[in-house]
Amino acid sequence: MSEITIAIDAMGGDNGCEPIIDGLIQALDEAKFKAILVGNQDEILSYLPQYYLDAIEIVHCEDVISMSDAATDALKRKESSIFQAVELVRDGKANGVVSAGHSGATMTLATLRIGRLPHVNKPPLATLMPTNAGSKSLLLDVGAVTDCKPRNLYEFAVMGKAYAQEVMGISRPRIGLLSNGEEDSKGNDLTKETFPLLKDITGFVGNVEGRDIFNGSVDVIVTDGFTGNIVLKTSEGVASAIIDLMRQNIKKSIPAKIGALLMKRKVFTNLKKQVDYAEYGGAPLLGVNGCAIISHGSSNAKAIKNAIFQAIKFANSDINKKIEEALEEHK
Amino acid sequence: MSEITIAIDAMGGDNGCEPIIDGLIQALDEAKFKAILVGNQDEILSYLPQYYLDAIEIVHCEDVISMSDAATDALKRKESSIFQAVELVRDGKANGVVSAGHSGATMTLATLRIGRLPHVNKPPLATLMPTNAGSKSLLLDVGAVTDCKPRNLYEFAVMGKAYAQEVMGISRPRIGLLSNGEEDSKGNDLTKETFPLLKDITGFVGNVEGRDIFNGSVDVIVTDGFTGNIVLKTSEGVASAIIDLMRQNIKKSIPAKIGALLMKRKVFTNLKKQVDYAEYGGAPLLGVNGCAIISHGSSNAKAIKNAIFQAIKFANSDINKKIEEALEEHK
Repeated sequence: MSEITIAIDAMGGDNGCEPIIDGLIQALDEAKFKAILVGNQDEILSYLPQYYLDAIEIVHCEDVISMSDAATDALKRKESSIFQAVELVRDGKANGVVSAGHSGATMTLATLRIGRLPHVNKPPLATLMPTNAGSKSLLLDVGAVTDCKPRNLYEFAVMGKAYAQEVMGISRPRIGLLSNGEEDSKGNDLTKETFPLLKDITGFVGNVEGRDIFNGSVDVIVTDGFTGNIVLKTSEGVASAIIDLMRQNIKKSIPAKIGALLMKRKVFTNLKKQVDYAEYGGAPLLGVNGCAIISHGSSNAKAIKNAIFQAIKFANSDINKKIEEALEEHK
Repeated sequence: MSEITIAIDAMGGDNGCEPIIDGLIQALDEAKFKAILVGNQDEILSYLPQYYLDAIEIVHCEDVISMSDAATDALKRKESSIFQAVELVRDGKANGVVSAGHSGATMTLATLRIGRLPHVNKPPLATLMPTNAGSKSLLLDVGAVTDCKPRNLYEFAVMGKAYAQEVMGISRPRIGLLSNGEEDSKGNDLTKETFPLLKDITGFVGNVEGRDIFNGSVDVIVTDGFTGNIVLKTSEGVASAIIDLMRQNIKKSIPAKIGALLMKRKVFTNLKKQVDYAEYGGAPLLGVNGCAIISHGSSNAKAIKNAIFQAIKFANSDINKKIEEALEEHK
């Protein structure tokens, strides 16, 4: 493939095809790549403007894995859009896949059908978090591997570092182990056993705390998928509670309402942009022998567009080669 | 003791005696109780107005456990203010103790010197979290027990429920198990083994996610001390990152600056009050045969005042009797 080709699962998102097709169109307007849209052809054609038909290949399939289906069934549902989209990467017909469908199914399929890189035991899901320094930090795992062994966390650190270097463009990423205190002695059994392993990785800064995810003091934060998922949802919960409380307070006062209007464009719109996951794209599943970007089920067009850009950047990078080399060295 | 007596560790906080004595004075102005202030008498007298000398008993001691000391040394430091303050509860001379000093030392001393209630294996530290519903939720454990067994989490649920009923005044608390998804099947090995145990507790609503801590859908959130501590610090991190980003945005625009002024009193001051830990007091260590409230090292006078009120409320309640009864039933 001379040009990057991205397979996009058109189905399975919370809001149907429309935001996914809109996002793809926006991406095609801004960047040069080849797109394969996988899903129900009739539905796709009802949303896709004629004009884009030449630029997009459609792979029709009948089945859709819905959010209530079990991830374990994904392997059997060979006619599902996500199975077919992943298969395009497996078969070398696409460089990366983007899906806003069932994330468990996507992770299972990407891991088992595309396959893992050598020496990767369990691929982690990584997500970008906003910081008050304007930079982004990478948190992993956020839900792929709920029960981890020290070796898993070691591999997450290696893969997170490679992503930071090759995709985020941070030449010397600082890597922290998420713990309940900064001192070396802090942690649970898992992190205490992991700590000495991470000392082998250049850039390891030791234990970091929950607040360090958001203050720009570290680039890559390593944790197990149970804790990482809770951290992710806690962050979303705090942000939306603060916004809710502010709204409630604004409603109660006329000066505050006027104040809010004056602050709208330069403060609230900016803030929304700074913390909105749609600006970040999706979550890459690292350590698979290809590229898989998992988007929020409720992704809007902008989130899909950015997830596609993320997939292109990933596919254009040397990340998988770097992961292989680093793990080969410390297998 | 007919009147409630609270022992207050005057030393060991990040900002010395002053905020602690100020907080105690504010508490004495608002409520009727007996206070024993434990610490260096000269230092205490240099801050304590003559007028309050009659209302406060001072227990002089020479030693202070500082933040950099090891918690494990606490038992040997018998002349330290925190040791002596805890000892007053052990000896029945005080109903509760409040300390803004070394939290590990306070937890160790309260657990070992005051002792645990029958059938309590490990006392958890509980903390109140703000919600967008205006209510507060109780998160435990937030750092006392980093590696838990299912039985520990079961006891945390029982103790959290008793605190919600007896101290927070919630007659039918909803209790959730913090997990990486709401479905019963979600969780790590620990929470999956804990889930069936919690089914015995009336009010158990199943697994809850990070965002549920802040949306008022649940009153008591049970987790291990590693995860809970990370959740607590993540919450603080998100809140302060949002406030920082808003400040940065406000600075860049004159209309926004005016808007911020208009919103100051009714929105930002209210919001600060709604999310400020100083409004909540400290974190109770549950399951000890008495009352121990652990305050932030950086507590201001208001936080100390509210921690003292919390101790009074705790000491006046039936919580420890309720915990004993509940655990006796399912030991």
